[in-house]
Amino acid sequence: MAATSIPAPELAVQTWFNTDRPLSLSALRGRVVVLVAFQVLCPDSVAHAIPQARRIHETFEPSDVAVVGLHTTFEHHEAYSLAVLKSFIHEYRLKFPIALDSAGEAGPIPHTMDLYNMRGTPSLILVDRRGLIRKHAFGAADDLRIGAEIGALTQEAAAAAARSSAA
Amino acid sequence: MAATSIPAPELAVQTWFNTDRPLSLSALRGRVVVLVAFQVLCPDSVAHAIPQARRIHETFEPSDVAVVGLHTTFEHHEAYSLAVLKSFIHEYRLKFPIALDSAGEAGPIPHTMDLYNMRGTPSLILVDRRGLIRKHAFGAADDLRIGAEIGALTQEAAAAAARSSAA
Amino acid sequence: MAATSIPAPELAVQTWFNTDRPLSLSALRGRVVVLVAFQVLCPDSVAHAIPQARRIHETFEPSDVAVVGLHTTFEHHEAYSLAVLKSFIHEYRLKFPIALDSAGEAGPIPHTMDLYNMRGTPSLILVDRRGLIRKHAFGAADDLRIGAEIGALTQEAAAAAARSSAA
Amino acid sequence: MAATSIPAPELAVQTWFNTDRPLSLSALRGRVVVLVAFQVLCPDSVAHAIPQARRIHETFEPSDVAVVGLHTTFEHHEAYSLAVLKSFIHEYRLKFPIALDSAGEAGPIPHTMDLYNMRGTPSLILVDRRGLIRKHAFGAADDLRIGAEIGALTQEAAAAAARSSAA
Repeated sequence: MAATSIPAPELAVQTWFNTDRPLSLSALRGRVVVLVAFQVLCPDSVAHAIPQARRIHETFEPSDVAVVGLHTTFEHHEAYSLAVLKSFIHEYRLKFPIALDSAGEAGPIPHTMDLYNMRGTPSLILVDRRGLIRKHAFGAADDLRIGAEIGALTQEAAAAAARSSAA
Repeated sequence: MAATSIPAPELAVQTWFNTDRPLSLSALRGRVVVLVAFQVLCPDSVAHAIPQARRIHETFEPSDVAVVGLHTTFEHHEAYSLAVLKSFIHEYRLKFPIALDSAGEAGPIPHTMDLYNMRGTPSLILVDRRGLIRKHAFGAADDLRIGAEIGALTQEAAAAAARSSAA
Repeated sequence: MAATSIPAPELAVQTWFNTDRPLSLSALRGRVVVLVAFQVLCPDSVAHAIPQARRIHETFEPSDVAVVGLHTTFEHHEAYSLAVLKSFIHEYRLKFPIALDSAGEAGPIPHTMDLYNMRGTPSLILVDRRGLIRKHAFGAADDLRIGAEIGALTQEAAAAAARSSAA
Repeated sequence: MAATSIPAPELAVQTWFNTDRPLSLSALRGRVVVLVAFQVLCPDSVAHAIPQARRIHETFEPSDVAVVGLHTTFEHHEAYSLAVLKSFIHEYRLKFPIALDSAGEAGPIPHTMDLYNMRGTPSLILVDRRGLIRKHAFGAADDLRIGAEIGALTQEAAAAAARSSAA
């Protein structure tokens, strides 16, 4: 997991769930952000990514590691509605904030999916405390490896702080 | 699994998928029928009942054991559409016939769910070769036990034939 | 699962566990017998065959379907002792009768493994009520299919009885 | 996972497997050490701890995170022999170094189990780069959490280095 200098683009969101007001990545600066892109009709999203997102949400302190869901899809547009996502969140007992990607201006690819150049769902993106993308994975991700990468990112603050106070 | 004398009510279907023409239980007489009631937004349906239905479909000869899906729900009506179910069937690669339950005349309970007095989804119903209900289970069902019950029902024809030819 | 005319050879047993007196297949005539060949140091035996044997034992009536374990191996002879098998049975809470295969007269292949021409462990053998081998599978077996085959075999008595009384 | 000042006691080992020469924790100083205490006849060890140890071994660089197995038990002494452990390591394709705990001087509790005050198997102990115990867990451990804790420990060197160079 190499450090990169690519800042995570701000999410382009149509509707938020599980949060009183819209979130932004800039407001989450200082936390590690786990962005989980999924869709209701994607088997791997439902069988793997959503249970894993829930485990991450339950394992880490939300003030330290923020889990953010992103419902996004380049297909099945005729099937999806706010009601589908709302019912899904209710039935799967999801408690972390979830964004509905905003429609793309041209073609079937939604705005945030395009900004992040995602290949599809599920995708998992790790953003460090400074707002830089540190991992971008497509497909079912391994708990042990993801845990290790999040755990490593949570430690960077101390290092950064040490460097700062030393300067 | 005791023999009962309760005939399986005919399905009240709005739309069929994965079949050229509407099915009826009476036309399936002579086969064991495995009726799997599910809905797209029910976690146990998606995690357990649908994969199990697929395994049953792959394990037995369709000419001997007919798997029939029934999408039925007393809630989330605002979320469901033909497009949701169609996309789900496509994404989960379901090949067996699937019926969309017809709306109830009064209230949220659909017609077939009402006829069978189902408690919700997932539900699994076994119908014997004569069209009698032999099992009605609510919730995730065990592969070994369901396999045994289907296997036992498949043998009844031979017994019946033996009795007939002896008479 | 075709009917064959191959009678199941009697087990050649060094020591029995979980039974007051030695069992024999002939004494189990009239029941369906599920013979599960395993060994303690075989990963597939421990991860798949033993839990499955336990599920079969819990799912069916022992008076109708008898589960019999057979510890047998053509390797690791220097590692095995009565104490290893005894501790394994205790730790895994196995309640069904378990036989320790008797050593072969020449070479590493034990007596019962040789009589049944087993390829190794795990192996699962189904014996019908008349004592005939109806299935012989090597490797991890599928719950649904095994359940179906056992369920079908349990029904044969009724058919046979019907045929007998008709004659 | 709080920092403690308890140094990990050196292992008291009867026999080593999968290593040309005896290991010592002091020789592993500078690496994160994952010590996995298990026994062959413990169901949770075999079903959870050993596969997890293998995953950890495959996920991290051995030069950064050293996985060490410890076969230890306060029971079934009559069942165990060098041959049992040797066959187990072979059958489960374990590649990381594994120590056989040395017998206790009085009573059934082996030496290392006693030094670490383990409650039994499986137990998982994390030792940081300085040789301090940072986690001691009994029972099946969660991949995501263990991954996070190992990931965090791997980052400590950088922090320590930053602090040192700042001083």
